[in-house]
Amino acid sequence: MRIAIDAMGGDNAPEAIISGTLESIELLGEDDELILVGPREVIEPQLPSLRSREGTISVFDAPEVIGMDEPPIESLRRKVKSSIAIIAKLAKLGRVDAVISAGNTGACVAAFQIRMRNLPRVNRPGIAVVFPTFEGPVTICDVGANIACKPINLYQYGVMASIYSKHLLGIENPRVGLMSIGQEDAKGNEIVKKTRGFMKSDPNMNFVGNIEGRDIFKGVCDVAICDGFVGNVILKLTEGVVAGLFKAIKHELLAEKLRLAMKFKPVMARIYKKYDYNEYGGALMLGVNGTALICHGSSHSRTIKNAILASKKYYTERINDKIAEYLSSTSVRENNEQGS
Amino acid sequence: MRIAIDAMGGDNAPEAIISGTLESIELLGEDDELILVGPREVIEPQLPSLRSREGTISVFDAPEVIGMDEPPIESLRRKVKSSIAIIAKLAKLGRVDAVISAGNTGACVAAFQIRMRNLPRVNRPGIAVVFPTFEGPVTICDVGANIACKPINLYQYGVMASIYSKHLLGIENPRVGLMSIGQEDAKGNEIVKKTRGFMKSDPNMNFVGNIEGRDIFKGVCDVAICDGFVGNVILKLTEGVVAGLFKAIKHELLAEKLRLAMKFKPVMARIYKKYDYNEYGGALMLGVNGTALICHGSSHSRTIKNAILASKKYYTERINDKIAEYLSSTSVRENNEQGS
Repeated sequence: MRIAIDAMGGDNAPEAIISGTLESIELLGEDDELILVGPREVIEPQLPSLRSREGTISVFDAPEVIGMDEPPIESLRRKVKSSIAIIAKLAKLGRVDAVISAGNTGACVAAFQIRMRNLPRVNRPGIAVVFPTFEGPVTICDVGANIACKPINLYQYGVMASIYSKHLLGIENPRVGLMSIGQEDAKGNEIVKKTRGFMKSDPNMNFVGNIEGRDIFKGVCDVAICDGFVGNVILKLTEGVVAGLFKAIKHELLAEKLRLAMKFKPVMARIYKKYDYNEYGGALMLGVNGTALICHGSSHSRTIKNAILASKKYYTERINDKIAEYLSSTSVRENNEQGS
Repeated sequence: MRIAIDAMGGDNAPEAIISGTLESIELLGEDDELILVGPREVIEPQLPSLRSREGTISVFDAPEVIGMDEPPIESLRRKVKSSIAIIAKLAKLGRVDAVISAGNTGACVAAFQIRMRNLPRVNRPGIAVVFPTFEGPVTICDVGANIACKPINLYQYGVMASIYSKHLLGIENPRVGLMSIGQEDAKGNEIVKKTRGFMKSDPNMNFVGNIEGRDIFKGVCDVAICDGFVGNVILKLTEGVVAGLFKAIKHELLAEKLRLAMKFKPVMARIYKKYDYNEYGGALMLGVNGTALICHGSSHSRTIKNAILASKKYYTERINDKIAEYLSSTSVRENNEQGS
């Protein structure tokens, strides 16, 4: 399998990206190839043992870099030789089987959608992230690819995230919840209500109905579906609440006494480790015709290593074939919308 | 001032509601009157010392009760003698100056909107809650009254929540953030973009631009504006994250050792107390022509007591007059939307 990694993506690039890539090598097979994409003169000096790994790791020159805060579409148009534009192109040309970037999310979403196109029958791709919760991992889709979702998009996110949850996380018959503002049938906006109709009409989906914000952490579902605006707020809010709460705890503990704070430190570290999204490597872009992972801007080398392993599992498990198969056999179609 | 309290609202009614009402008495003035609304035969036996408080506290009979999970509109129509319907009617008739309920939120929103009507120039009321964060209290509006917001609604939520933040929380010149999925101008859906235009064009609003989910806890704004769908997800998600995280911490501490867990208990209690929404009593329904507070379904007596005090402050500070005044002088109007 050939995996292209954007060496210049994220706040810790290129160091963290390169070391994560190197760390992953021993966990991969003999046939796997890793291609670091970025300015050759930046990457190669950081790969001292490149020769010894020949065949396993190589560099593909991409002299331009899209910054984390640059406007996505405009910068893609302007910087055709950027690492993000080039990994997307390599995927399109079939020269790699998977792409990974921790760079500008908007630019990644746009480049992957435009270059890789959609899987057959997929109307719009969505980004799925795994939330590690006390009750188990919950896959949330979409977290930012599509902020103007139609019911068919949300339904398909349910299908794709279920298949992902089953085959990548090993959850048998994942329970799908639809994010709304109350559990009753009558709650939610028109799009939620129509989506509900779609999900209910699919006998192969384990749909558990509407869920509320708090339910994500209560073990009532394995998959949570929402539009990209709401999902993005959920993703970033959760980060903010956790960081804010730990700050408050630290502050209280230090006010109490230093010794107690010191004792609590390893506990906090364990919690961080256990509920750490870095474990999952990154967010899968479900619905594109290929394997594409978008990592958090603050990714460490471990995140990148895990992203490489996740992309391999996604590819090997043939998740995309399973999605295409499911969508070709379901009777839920966009034009049902009028009738629902 | 006369305050009507729904004695039957919430999971702990009527006990918690009645004791919260009794607790508030000594903090009120001689001219204040509290009217407990609910089935007389249920409330009166719980008011042993009613006679001694004559003039201060009374009961208004409302024989029907709307359950927490009943469909709002339908049950309001069916149960005209429910406590929620009756407090709304008392407000409409000018027989009370404020209403408070911890009951069925949907029914409260509908009853207060229909009966109390909007303040002059307010297009749609919104519910504001105060999030106690490490960096100070953040007022979020709307959290569920209006799930199909127009830009003018969001702009007005910014105005109303600012006035609330200034006069009730004492924050001078509150910074207003608009919830979106990225800080750049180009980010967000069409409604967010138009709202941004409105907020920017108002020189009296301290608008700090788009914010993301994580920013609520980072001290970048005092007021966060979003539509009722997103706000409701934010409210309930935060509850869920906090509960989930405390559960995880408890689990880890107990796995470590019991003594450490015991030591951590008072710290947790202090954090709970410091960042407890019960302190703020409940959510203000901003934009209705009157003073209406909606409390959390799980309100304790302390929540009710604080809600009574908050309603008094809201009324005494003449927040509604300030809102009406501001909206009559701003040049931002709904029909600007076409031109924006």
